[in-house]
Amino acid sequence: MIDFACKKFDLDEVVKCILMLSKSEFRILKFLAEHDGKFTTENLSKKLNLDKSSVQRSIKKLYEKNLVVRSQVNQSVGGYLFLYGIKDKTLIKKVVADILDSWVEIFKKKLSGW
Amino acid sequence: MIDFACKKFDLDEVVKCILMLSKSEFRILKFLAEHDGKFTTENLSKKLNLDKSSVQRSIKKLYEKNLVVRSQVNQSVGGYLFLYGIKDKTLIKKVVADILDSWVEIFKKKLSGW
Repeated sequence: MIDFACKKFDLDEVVKCILMLSKSEFRILKFLAEHDGKFTTENLSKKLNLDKSSVQRSIKKLYEKNLVVRSQVNQSVGGYLFLYGIKDKTLIKKVVADILDSWVEIFKKKLSGW
Repeated sequence: MIDFACKKFDLDEVVKCILMLSKSEFRILKFLAEHDGKFTTENLSKKLNLDKSSVQRSIKKLYEKNLVVRSQVNQSVGGYLFLYGIKDKTLIKKVVADILDSWVEIFKKKLSGW
């Protein structure tokens, strides 16, 4: 928890808010951020105890938001699987930090007219 | 109201929090910030509809915190009055802005370990 202007903030909540993620989107992103490697939606569904359709919806959003990468793996039995991993943690953190800065700039602008 | 991490903030509340002021201390400071000139505690009590002892307590705190200046005026009938005014609005705003920055630095430090 972090104090900010006499309110308590959880860092995860701030990141989730800045990236405009739903609860499951954030849970998946956090899991991918904490685990190296790539996962299928089925893996994620089991590991996070989320239903498969919710994982599929969430991973689609994360992919569209450019937060995860996808790679296609062809299977010997035919067909293929998609594997997902975090895109670029450093870049994601930079985006979050930049938005934090822009919020403070808005505060300061208002403050200058105080 | 300013949005910060999906919570709403009132600028006044942020300033009050940063300067660690009570409600009456903040009301007096804001009044002095908005009105040029100097006021006795009696003036302030009337203008802000606060009881005199509360104004005296609050102005003492504001003076100790270096947020207001005090000048002594001798009266022709003997005795003297204290007049109070805002100290240095620009400096106060700088202090507030610096604390905002330090909060964001704490956020970013936590974020770097995310």
